[in-house]
Amino acid sequence: MEQFGVEIYPDERVDDLQCRGYKLIQKKKGFSFGSDAVLLAAFAEVRRGDQILDLGTGSGIIPVLLAAKTKAAMIKGIEIQPEIAGMANRSIVMNKLENKVEIVCGDLRDYNNLKVGWYDLVVTNPPYNKTGGSIINNSGPVAISRHEVTCTLNDVVTSAARALRPDGRFAVVYRPERLVDLVWIMRNVGIEPKCLRFVHSSIYKKAHLVLINGTKGGKPELKMLPPLYIYDEVGLYTEEVRRIYGDDCRKALSGSDTDRES
Amino acid sequence: MEQFGVEIYPDERVDDLQCRGYKLIQKKKGFSFGSDAVLLAAFAEVRRGDQILDLGTGSGIIPVLLAAKTKAAMIKGIEIQPEIAGMANRSIVMNKLENKVEIVCGDLRDYNNLKVGWYDLVVTNPPYNKTGGSIINNSGPVAISRHEVTCTLNDVVTSAARALRPDGRFAVVYRPERLVDLVWIMRNVGIEPKCLRFVHSSIYKKAHLVLINGTKGGKPELKMLPPLYIYDEVGLYTEEVRRIYGDDCRKALSGSDTDRES
Repeated sequence: MEQFGVEIYPDERVDDLQCRGYKLIQKKKGFSFGSDAVLLAAFAEVRRGDQILDLGTGSGIIPVLLAAKTKAAMIKGIEIQPEIAGMANRSIVMNKLENKVEIVCGDLRDYNNLKVGWYDLVVTNPPYNKTGGSIINNSGPVAISRHEVTCTLNDVVTSAARALRPDGRFAVVYRPERLVDLVWIMRNVGIEPKCLRFVHSSIYKKAHLVLINGTKGGKPELKMLPPLYIYDEVGLYTEEVRRIYGDDCRKALSGSDTDRES
Repeated sequence: MEQFGVEIYPDERVDDLQCRGYKLIQKKKGFSFGSDAVLLAAFAEVRRGDQILDLGTGSGIIPVLLAAKTKAAMIKGIEIQPEIAGMANRSIVMNKLENKVEIVCGDLRDYNNLKVGWYDLVVTNPPYNKTGGSIINNSGPVAISRHEVTCTLNDVVTSAARALRPDGRFAVVYRPERLVDLVWIMRNVGIEPKCLRFVHSSIYKKAHLVLINGTKGGKPELKMLPPLYIYDEVGLYTEEVRRIYGDDCRKALSGSDTDRES
């Protein structure tokens, strides 16, 4: 079936991002984007004319949001799964973003897929979970999006360090349980963590996401931001989250706090 | 002047810790303990019979609180400043804790002052600030308590790693701005950060302290605890803080959020 000028397969749906008419093709079943991608897109500091790289772009949600909301010059998304990269590419065409976003199907560990020392900003929403042999089915697209099947956290951050220009910026969303892994790897590959923000579903809950900005070759000194709460004391979206989601994709998220599979 | 069986000098005062009659000698002017020491004493997991080491014990506040509240077998505090170590020692005598607490005047980098591979738990409230040549007077006791004059964070954590037995525990309170330094050093010396809690003066403020538990030789996996808020929405101590301070030293703290000089 053709819709909005591109082919939509029977196992796909088109979500309206509620943001200036932008839309996104996603699988009906399987991994779909969640608030982590939206929060990262809002957290990353994008400057006019930035060259941006998204490592493991999936459906292309982050490039689409950044193209919609910022003055970035060009956003490149790398995705290893051909089917998912093709779907992301059709979303770019559907949104007429071909002149601002490029989707590449390839391995983020292969430096032929990126320009070394070139990008102003690298963003990533990497797989959160270490591969546990027996627990997961390692072959499916959900496993690849969620688990370190095709690359480890170390691979992702190492590629980011290679891709960034000196003083280039890195923005990542991750699980707090692996915060030590993340900042330890970042410092070891030369991306100093500079700014940190925890995301809590509500005030007295522990953080379930962490957002980090780093700078390639930056000096050690971490800026802590106040917590970002999703819900307030009475269970409504906080004003800040309404501002972020309102601009973006409240409907598509429909209450999900992180990425999800259906 | 003699008071409670020990000599009290004219520049000293005796504070009632509001905790089972325990008292502490402090300088009238200069560095006095704050909520960071009290929160660390409440955060550290102490087991019956533990051998504990406090690196940079200052007035001895942490050993006194741990002796008062736990079933630890023995607590040793190392303090490099002879005058402060002497004062801490008089507090121990005043509280009749000589059979549970030992204060040693010495350099925590000198392993002759501790038993290598022996302690079940090492606690520390290290100097928070990097030494900035022009800003501070490097010679005074306040500078030594607050700045890395006599030892760096790396020295403190390295000594902790040497002092701990295998699987021994480490508990530290520090500034969030140096969180990356702290966890990076901990992992590098073999103390894996296992549990992390941020302290916020109130709900929408950024964290001003971080509490971390680590384990010598532990596996990577961080447990995040919910934030600890000092004040609630209407500006009163939260229930948890009332419970911690109520047991300890609400009066002596008199509203201070961290260590302070007067």
